[in-house]
Amino acid sequence: MSTFGGIDLGGTKIQAAVLDDAHNVVGSARRPTPVTGGPANVAAEMETALRDAAKAAEVEPASLAGVGVGSPGTIDAGNVTSARNLPDWEGTFPLAATLAGALGCPVEVGNDVQVATDAEFKLGAGRLYDSLLGVFWGTGVGAGLILDGKPWTGRGAAGEIGHVVVEINGALCTCGRRGCMEAYAGRAAMEEHVRRLHEEKGRKTDLFKLMKEQGRTRLTSGIWSRALDRGDKLAIHVLDRAVTALGAGIASAVNLLDVEGVIIGGGLGVRLGHPYAKRIADAMQPHLFADSRPPHVHVAALGDLGGAIGASLLVRSEG
Amino acid sequence: MSTFGGIDLGGTKIQAAVLDDAHNVVGSARRPTPVTGGPANVAAEMETALRDAAKAAEVEPASLAGVGVGSPGTIDAGNVTSARNLPDWEGTFPLAATLAGALGCPVEVGNDVQVATDAEFKLGAGRLYDSLLGVFWGTGVGAGLILDGKPWTGRGAAGEIGHVVVEINGALCTCGRRGCMEAYAGRAAMEEHVRRLHEEKGRKTDLFKLMKEQGRTRLTSGIWSRALDRGDKLAIHVLDRAVTALGAGIASAVNLLDVEGVIIGGGLGVRLGHPYAKRIADAMQPHLFADSRPPHVHVAALGDLGGAIGASLLVRSEG
Repeated sequence: MSTFGGIDLGGTKIQAAVLDDAHNVVGSARRPTPVTGGPANVAAEMETALRDAAKAAEVEPASLAGVGVGSPGTIDAGNVTSARNLPDWEGTFPLAATLAGALGCPVEVGNDVQVATDAEFKLGAGRLYDSLLGVFWGTGVGAGLILDGKPWTGRGAAGEIGHVVVEINGALCTCGRRGCMEAYAGRAAMEEHVRRLHEEKGRKTDLFKLMKEQGRTRLTSGIWSRALDRGDKLAIHVLDRAVTALGAGIASAVNLLDVEGVIIGGGLGVRLGHPYAKRIADAMQPHLFADSRPPHVHVAALGDLGGAIGASLLVRSEG
Repeated sequence: MSTFGGIDLGGTKIQAAVLDDAHNVVGSARRPTPVTGGPANVAAEMETALRDAAKAAEVEPASLAGVGVGSPGTIDAGNVTSARNLPDWEGTFPLAATLAGALGCPVEVGNDVQVATDAEFKLGAGRLYDSLLGVFWGTGVGAGLILDGKPWTGRGAAGEIGHVVVEINGALCTCGRRGCMEAYAGRAAMEEHVRRLHEEKGRKTDLFKLMKEQGRTRLTSGIWSRALDRGDKLAIHVLDRAVTALGAGIASAVNLLDVEGVIIGGGLGVRLGHPYAKRIADAMQPHLFADSRPPHVHVAALGDLGGAIGASLLVRSEG
């Protein structure tokens, strides 16, 4: 019996899991992503999260067959460069080597969105399909692609669905470009937008009050969800705008690729769940060229743990 | 020595070619696509075009090893359904069987855009790449995809790049949807737009005068090109708008797929040539996520004959 570790490094949280041979999660832990201290500090928190998950699973980290990591940014041989949406991550950081040294077991690093898509394809909501678009709706919006049963990563940077243009000369994106889907639908951009409407235009919202009550410094997916439950009109407006952008951007991808299935994951995607996956499918419909047979749209079945489960696939011999 | 036929069925013209074993064009002919009479009339003109090309090549149509056809619409076992941009093409028409009966040789039908992309990949401007986006800019705007050296057609309807959304709630497309790239860049939509500006808003242009002088009923690529050469301000404005839309839509596709090369073909793409391929590449740049290494952008090397050459690949044993 071997055990495997998986760590999902997100813009707001680090999720770690320990899994058995049969992909059962036998221990898990979560920590907020540090907002200061750069990659070294992030790596230290990742180590702690994995140690906590291993403790819950009653195994030693050094006894794991390996630990897989899903990370944003450009990944090359375990080194991570320009991990956008992570604070102070300048230059290249040897993430695999650092974690392997700290944990005493082999570490592999892959693209966060691609490993989460692989997990849904092999174990989750995409099991029935040969072609799949995984859309991860969180701090940013990224996509993973499965075409003909295999991941498609292009020259290493495929899947940037967040930067599909939905509005020429549109809203300013956190990437500095204009009119990207993420400029409307990414949680970071949504927070900037709602803050401006609230602070500069005097529009009312409970979002920032909820943030303080929860002891947070950012509008997390949970805070957006609570504001929706309370009928917060500004939160509803900003999320409607996000759904419209997601509908157009995902439909564009489907018009280009004609995949069988679309999986909606990520912090917001999982938190808002089926009702919002349905709303996104409805927002796609008017833009779909082959509209008589739209792709199936599902919420990520592996939920919040999908990224960590997908990361653990990196260190399994069956791939 | 075998000879092969290829027919490219376009929205404004039918291009036929006869090729030898080594893919040399040994005869070709062109006819305008009939605007009345539906698919039976179109098939009769296709037969005539192929007979003319065979005559130029000094071979009998019945002696050809086969004839390949690139057609718009949905293609299933030689039958063509909903061939948009072709007039009066209602329901399903048995194009392969009709032509095979008329010509006395085997006929295979494939997607027009995909066969043209295959031709550029195997014989043209895409020879150096393993991943490729072929963009065919004519009456409409369609795309063919080569990923990992193989065509990607999805569930049969991939490549509809013309219906990638570049402007939510934007211009009305000829497909009935709003904000599609083709609503700005397709020649049919450009003609409708410029006609409205000219007839309803009184904007000056020589486009329609040139059309009459040429004895045409539509604004062909040649007419657009002549108007540009004359410095026609309205033609320049409408083409600038098309280039902006093409830049955003193609960049969106590249952000999603990260292909190595982009080929610009189609009636307008080939006619306007390198200067416009360069302009499209420049218009893509501000939207590209991996902007430090944009894909290579080329004009289709096989020019106007690319579609017919690609169609002939359908009836060669080497595929």
